[in-house]
Amino acid sequence: MVGEQVDRRLAAILAADVAGYSRLMGADETGTFGALKAHRSHAIDPAIASHEGRIVKTTGDGILVEFSSAIHAIACAIDIQKAMTERNRDVPANRRIDFRIGINIGDVIIDSDDVFGDGVNIAVRLEGLAEPGGIYLSRAVHEQVAAKVAATFTEVGVRNLKNIDIPVQVFRVSAHSEGPQGLALPPLIGHR
Amino acid sequence: MVGEQVDRRLAAILAADVAGYSRLMGADETGTFGALKAHRSHAIDPAIASHEGRIVKTTGDGILVEFSSAIHAIACAIDIQKAMTERNRDVPANRRIDFRIGINIGDVIIDSDDVFGDGVNIAVRLEGLAEPGGIYLSRAVHEQVAAKVAATFTEVGVRNLKNIDIPVQVFRVSAHSEGPQGLALPPLIGHR
Repeated sequence: MVGEQVDRRLAAILAADVAGYSRLMGADETGTFGALKAHRSHAIDPAIASHEGRIVKTTGDGILVEFSSAIHAIACAIDIQKAMTERNRDVPANRRIDFRIGINIGDVIIDSDDVFGDGVNIAVRLEGLAEPGGIYLSRAVHEQVAAKVAATFTEVGVRNLKNIDIPVQVFRVSAHSEGPQGLALPPLIGHR
Repeated sequence: MVGEQVDRRLAAILAADVAGYSRLMGADETGTFGALKAHRSHAIDPAIASHEGRIVKTTGDGILVEFSSAIHAIACAIDIQKAMTERNRDVPANRRIDFRIGINIGDVIIDSDDVFGDGVNIAVRLEGLAEPGGIYLSRAVHEQVAAKVAATFTEVGVRNLKNIDIPVQVFRVSAHSEGPQGLALPPLIGHR
């Protein structure tokens, strides 16, 4: 039998975590925890839901999300970063929670609702490379979305990622700068 | 709103058709039709089912199949070509039905169970490039499957495909030559 017995499917994997989470927690544990929780429930989770993502798991500051479409994954990431820009507008720089996001496409292994494989690992490594507030993609994602999403893609370069055999061509995406769109800002952070 | 309103999903698209179908039909319409029907029901359709493919549409000699995994799509294509080699073993060369197969990964548009977009068109163009009995893949597929499928991948080169803006790097896949595996040969073609 060519192939494998495991359950696989093509998915866009989005990995996000908070830049400088340990420092933020060290400076103000309760405040950081509360702010992160509010960001999750008012910005992150609604963006994921509206783009039909499935939250695979969360860690203290991180989240792993599966999408059936790479275009939905990118749109979700852009909505999250736009919302966070708004939410951080009046927050002092040293207390700001900024997410780094990495997105990859993979023919991932599915087991008991968890996802495994290089496709997942590459997304996590891309997230680790991204600057705070940034969104990094592999070439596989770029190829699927570049002509179909209204955003700016910039090549970062070819990178060797830890524990990944083949170098990955990395791209950065930034939303067009017309201001927040698509994600209704929650009442929590007020009106403009 | 970044992104689009249409329903999209990542899919591996397999396009197959019969090489020289018009010539075969011209030479023996009834015989070709009957042979093709037998190949479908005893080799092609079971291979698609066993690899969890979804037949999107069929034409006289063609078939378009959606898989949720690229690895499943490759395994299906290899099983089909191995089965056809067996089924053609005692058929005179001028009456042989050989399939060409193209496979691509795309973030395709889904509408009423039909699939649309570049992702589909590229699969069809790859099929048109393939030699009779051959399986051609885009780089996007190769990247997902090369390390995970027991088969030989050979780069064909970069090709400009009709009505596709960006040149596509094309690969050929051939099964390892241990003989047919994985697809139980139907009683129709007897025992060896």
